[in-house]
Amino acid sequence: MAEAFDIGARAKARCDLMGAAPYSEAEGMLVRRFLTPAHKAALDTLKFWMEEAGLAARIDAAGNLVGRYEGAAPGAPALLIGSHIDSVRNGGRYDGALGVTLGIDVVEVLNRAGRRLPFAVEVVAFGDEEGSRFPASMTCSRAVAGTVDVQVMEMVDGDGVSLAEAFAAFGLDPTRLEEAARKPGEVLAFLEAHIEQGPVLEAEDLALGVVTAIAAQKRLMVRIEGVAGHAGTTPMALRKDPGPAAAEAMLALERICRGGCDGLVGTVGRMTALPGAFNVIPGAVEFSMDIRAEVEATRDAAAEAITAEIEAIAARRGLSASVTLMQALAASPCDPGLTALLEAAVAETGQPPRRLPSGAGHDAMVIADLCPTAMLFIRCEGGISHNPREAVTEADCALAARAMLAFVERLAASNSLQRSA
Amino acid sequence: MAEAFDIGARAKARCDLMGAAPYSEAEGMLVRRFLTPAHKAALDTLKFWMEEAGLAARIDAAGNLVGRYEGAAPGAPALLIGSHIDSVRNGGRYDGALGVTLGIDVVEVLNRAGRRLPFAVEVVAFGDEEGSRFPASMTCSRAVAGTVDVQVMEMVDGDGVSLAEAFAAFGLDPTRLEEAARKPGEVLAFLEAHIEQGPVLEAEDLALGVVTAIAAQKRLMVRIEGVAGHAGTTPMALRKDPGPAAAEAMLALERICRGGCDGLVGTVGRMTALPGAFNVIPGAVEFSMDIRAEVEATRDAAAEAITAEIEAIAARRGLSASVTLMQALAASPCDPGLTALLEAAVAETGQPPRRLPSGAGHDAMVIADLCPTAMLFIRCEGGISHNPREAVTEADCALAARAMLAFVERLAASNSLQRSA
Repeated sequence: MAEAFDIGARAKARCDLMGAAPYSEAEGMLVRRFLTPAHKAALDTLKFWMEEAGLAARIDAAGNLVGRYEGAAPGAPALLIGSHIDSVRNGGRYDGALGVTLGIDVVEVLNRAGRRLPFAVEVVAFGDEEGSRFPASMTCSRAVAGTVDVQVMEMVDGDGVSLAEAFAAFGLDPTRLEEAARKPGEVLAFLEAHIEQGPVLEAEDLALGVVTAIAAQKRLMVRIEGVAGHAGTTPMALRKDPGPAAAEAMLALERICRGGCDGLVGTVGRMTALPGAFNVIPGAVEFSMDIRAEVEATRDAAAEAITAEIEAIAARRGLSASVTLMQALAASPCDPGLTALLEAAVAETGQPPRRLPSGAGHDAMVIADLCPTAMLFIRCEGGISHNPREAVTEADCALAARAMLAFVERLAASNSLQRSA
Repeated sequence: MAEAFDIGARAKARCDLMGAAPYSEAEGMLVRRFLTPAHKAALDTLKFWMEEAGLAARIDAAGNLVGRYEGAAPGAPALLIGSHIDSVRNGGRYDGALGVTLGIDVVEVLNRAGRRLPFAVEVVAFGDEEGSRFPASMTCSRAVAGTVDVQVMEMVDGDGVSLAEAFAAFGLDPTRLEEAARKPGEVLAFLEAHIEQGPVLEAEDLALGVVTAIAAQKRLMVRIEGVAGHAGTTPMALRKDPGPAAAEAMLALERICRGGCDGLVGTVGRMTALPGAFNVIPGAVEFSMDIRAEVEATRDAAAEAITAEIEAIAARRGLSASVTLMQALAASPCDPGLTALLEAAVAETGQPPRRLPSGAGHDAMVIADLCPTAMLFIRCEGGISHNPREAVTEADCALAARAMLAFVERLAASNSLQRSA
């Protein structure tokens, strides 16, 4: 197929355009939160681009923009392609948005060629993946998957505005959120392209990655308690200092995860000594642990191992320790059949089809409750994301768009979907 | 000498009385800050007790209460006995105050017996040791030692009141602060009795300790920088996480100090991971180090050793580290001759004369600029201080008073003072 535009590079340029006002709420940085005027501006422009590309676009009951390109027979089940259009505060231009603009490029190529498939293609721009306005994330993809809890309408943002009020102000009916749910028969599969937000592809000099699963995650809080004391008057041998115990625990977490498999990672993102004075031996130290792996059993074994080590460290030092589970998210494997098709599609672009897990959560893990999913990762500079320094190359975006097109054609040619769905 | 009152036990009871209103600014806790009505109430009552004990009492130009018991010849140089009468917020009843009330008990015993010494005895209640109202500590003992900087008058408290204004409101002339300075010839020596504020004496089942020196201290801030990243998307092998490096450094500090001599101690009182989110690998970790030892060279060697280790840890992990000196306080050795007298005096009470350094600062380290000093520590429960749970026993206070009396008599009998001064 020949194209009249720079496929992929144009998708990147569209994200760049949307990186500032009116597509951002703030001057000098990108902030595009759910149901803000910046979100509205992005939807209006994306809708214009969708229609230009040959998609019939509408806003669904959850505030998602959905553009439909009919298949050979009208009303056929759809392959959904998309990602989210909201951003974190001072975020990057490609996180989410690139998966939408690449979807538009893919359809425009099909449309210009007059290519109709055995299925429809729908490009979706989810409204709220990041949870940067309201205290829950992926509300919009949950609505599409039919798994949203209508209680979310009572959530309030930092200004005290409820989600229901924000819906009404945006011209949406908050009582109709559940109508965004798709019926399983309407949807064949979901393909999400997203920047990697990590350094693996860059480290291996690869443009693209095929996601095997969205990792299982556990968030734990550790508290080690000792006895606070005067930093000057308590000899080392008489201390019950939780600080060095926490230090041993942090090194144990690093050792366990370095020695692990299935993409096991463990992170201490927060640490606090209490009361936190220069000249006071802490009475307690608290720190967070974020543990993830492709496979839940691997994650759980790591969480159990570090918990046992923390208890042993505390006991040896005459301290007490507690490890509290704050959150557990199940792993979300991508569909094996679709993943194999996506690997073949990536290979068709001349790229080695590198498989890797996604350590971050994505809309695809929510949509997996509705239909089989596949996910394509695009290299980003330094692995940096959630940051204005987020960067991708035009060449990588072009490869991504070509791999997505190849995936669509392979899906059309195969019956693997029916087998795996 | 026979006493008509419970020596020492009464000193404790007087501290207990002064543990609440009107000797405290707050209900339900002890807060007695410099130049407050609670401070005034304490001075009035202490002045009454001093006069009852046979001391001629006055408020000096710095707001210190000074009671004088003349020697055999009027106008003789004085042995000063005392400590501070201010407290931290929600402090304990004995920290400082007990050194003053014990001094009064000692003089009352002498006075009742009609015992006049070759020197005068003055009991001093310093006004501001803790620095809990104005942002400098030991202003009053510095004034007595002649080392105060009159600039302190410009300091303001949390309510915006300057020290000069507080002086005037208390009936003191802020321009005459320096007149509190004692001439070296007027003062023979200084004896401070103070609760240990640490657990050593209790651990060794001893009532009293003889302080060898107030420890040298260094405060350092450590910053280890790496590269922030997503906790889910950055494999362990590709991380530049400053957290485990900081953990290694904290354990190195503990190891160095445990293996040290001269009362070496090292404390990490503060630790922070930046930006401090559950799901973000920190870009930097900062933590404090408080390092103390009786001997400056020991403290400095430890600070150098930990700095070198931190640099090595950072280099091995591909991180950068900085160690910044925030404060260095010199050691203040107690006078060897007076300390030997105090040891003998403690032994006379039947207690083993345990020598130990003071890890905390005291007025004695300021008065050391004026005259030779000796310091007696009294066991406190659990080593707890700066806390309402601060506790001492009547029996230990009685032993302390008897050791102080024995010290006074040994000083009268010896000419060691002249040799060491």
